[in-house]
Amino acid sequence: MDTHGVGIAGWGAAGQLMAAALGHSERFRLAGVADVDPAAREHAAAETGCRVHPDVASLAASGDVDVVYVATPTATHLEAVRAVAAQGKHVISEKPLATTLTDARLAVEAAERAGVVLLVGATHSYNAPVRVLRRLVEDGTLGPLLSVCANCHTDWRRRPRSAADLDAAQGNGLVLRQGAHQIDVLRYVCGGLTESVTGTTFGGADGTELGFSAQLAFPGGVHASAYYVGTGGFDSRLQTWGVGELGTFDVAATPETSRFFVLPGEGAVSPVFGTLAATFADGGAWVTPTGALVFAGDDVTEVGVEDEASGWQALLAELAGALDGHPAVHTGRWGLATLEVALALHESARTGRRVGLHHQVPTQPDLQA
Amino acid sequence: MDTHGVGIAGWGAAGQLMAAALGHSERFRLAGVADVDPAAREHAAAETGCRVHPDVASLAASGDVDVVYVATPTATHLEAVRAVAAQGKHVISEKPLATTLTDARLAVEAAERAGVVLLVGATHSYNAPVRVLRRLVEDGTLGPLLSVCANCHTDWRRRPRSAADLDAAQGNGLVLRQGAHQIDVLRYVCGGLTESVTGTTFGGADGTELGFSAQLAFPGGVHASAYYVGTGGFDSRLQTWGVGELGTFDVAATPETSRFFVLPGEGAVSPVFGTLAATFADGGAWVTPTGALVFAGDDVTEVGVEDEASGWQALLAELAGALDGHPAVHTGRWGLATLEVALALHESARTGRRVGLHHQVPTQPDLQA
Repeated sequence: MDTHGVGIAGWGAAGQLMAAALGHSERFRLAGVADVDPAAREHAAAETGCRVHPDVASLAASGDVDVVYVATPTATHLEAVRAVAAQGKHVISEKPLATTLTDARLAVEAAERAGVVLLVGATHSYNAPVRVLRRLVEDGTLGPLLSVCANCHTDWRRRPRSAADLDAAQGNGLVLRQGAHQIDVLRYVCGGLTESVTGTTFGGADGTELGFSAQLAFPGGVHASAYYVGTGGFDSRLQTWGVGELGTFDVAATPETSRFFVLPGEGAVSPVFGTLAATFADGGAWVTPTGALVFAGDDVTEVGVEDEASGWQALLAELAGALDGHPAVHTGRWGLATLEVALALHESARTGRRVGLHHQVPTQPDLQA
Repeated sequence: MDTHGVGIAGWGAAGQLMAAALGHSERFRLAGVADVDPAAREHAAAETGCRVHPDVASLAASGDVDVVYVATPTATHLEAVRAVAAQGKHVISEKPLATTLTDARLAVEAAERAGVVLLVGATHSYNAPVRVLRRLVEDGTLGPLLSVCANCHTDWRRRPRSAADLDAAQGNGLVLRQGAHQIDVLRYVCGGLTESVTGTTFGGADGTELGFSAQLAFPGGVHASAYYVGTGGFDSRLQTWGVGELGTFDVAATPETSRFFVLPGEGAVSPVFGTLAATFADGGAWVTPTGALVFAGDDVTEVGVEDEASGWQALLAELAGALDGHPAVHTGRWGLATLEVALALHESARTGRRVGLHHQVPTQPDLQA
């Protein structure tokens, strides 16, 4: 099978993770890297041996590049999507798609006008165990879905952060950067069509977000809760068996914690973004790094993961499907809808009001199902 | 020391738990039982050997009774408190204090006019590990409190329930009966003075509550989240080491769950009402059945419980303190304030609005601290 060349715009952590994923792909190969920073370009050239570019337009113009993964700062996504689409190339944008709904809509329209695929990723709804949960919703064996609860305690705010990283106006801050994951997971599991959002944020003395709580309403009275704290106190990885966002066992057991938490495991597991529990009319499910524990009456069964363990591999599989004409979940319009929810959370936190939504799109059937 | 006679009005599960607690008390003794049901009276007489009464007024008039524990249906609490106060006797009312704010206020005023002690319990903020958490807030070693998250998954709605049990107009339903516990715990830990509530409920086809989510705002930007599902899918006791509301190890490990959860333990533990995590500026704490795990930087320490393991014993200790003139936490005005939050959750669920509060009182220093 012919391979497609993927160019990476932005040689940060996300770009480097994508490069690693491309190294394991049979369908895609790394075809170039762009970064505005000469040192980053030099590093990328040395690491990958591939051609480097000073900007996304030059990368997109390269004959070797069929798809551009845009992992530059959020505020530059619209310009990057336009530049890539103008070359008739496909785009994967990092989440969030843009800093404003208007910019996100312009990005979607640019891709649609050019007839190219636009995906928004990589988010944690690509994780195989989350897709196990979605299949439980779709197959209806536990009855109708009632509620989903996502909780995450991390040290996101303890890690070095620039002022821009914390600025919602630049498409950043805890809600847009980390909330985007929880919102995406909850929309994916609950069917995508969020009806309304209420939410609160809580923060430090400097006014920036240290945590948030959001309640999402879906058709049929389905309710979803997202709670996130990024201050680095209690760590959710203790509840997810030491497994975090990268699908690695990265919390060590101490004498104190080992009495209370099963830590750590071994072997191949999926990335885990906090705890995730779903309640159905006839049971419940709890996501693990290897699938889900399914509770029905007094019975507990373990449903294992059958497809890609890595969200990055799942993103590339979705891209391959989209290039073959299959409907994708994480389209530009999906990313626009997730951004709408995150911005509505901000609005609700400010006004104390439930905020209605108007740009939601449904979860498409999963190709890997 | 002289013992005080405690009469129990309502020989249901709560009344029988109180009778058991009185059996271990040096300060209080069971002095009578009232129940409108002759069969319940007969059972109480046979079980306890003490005098039984057909109504609370007769119980309160008994010369042997100094305090009446009112564990009758919520809608009868006001009448019962009035009858007991009219005899100049002290009262413990089961939560919630009443079905409406007006009734709760009238109950408080009746007790204050009569100069008798009115407590509202037994709620899970009496649990010793919750008080460990409150002490962490008070002593400030982890910096200012930012957020507290309470989660509970139980089978409350799967157990046999009468229509009255599910009727909010009668002071029942999931929010008033179970939410009262989470709200009480969160108010206690966060200082009591809830500023506003937003909340949603989700339910079954019959419109009654199967779960809820509530966000409470406290002074200084402190945020608290309560999430509760009562359908009996995933069970929070898996996250609380098999320990539930009664402080017993009552969830058995299965081959599937034992890979993921540490279950069960042994020895004396405290009642646990779901998971409870607190985030401070400089760390975090996670409540266990034996105290709290305290996280600060990379350090984890275990703070053990030093006082009463049982919430019922703690309630009797608080009563003893109140009779000796010490300020109590769980006064009538405290119960009124907790009821106000629960009713505001209902209002917010109906209107989609943040609801401001006007009857809040602060957490008093804990006698056991």
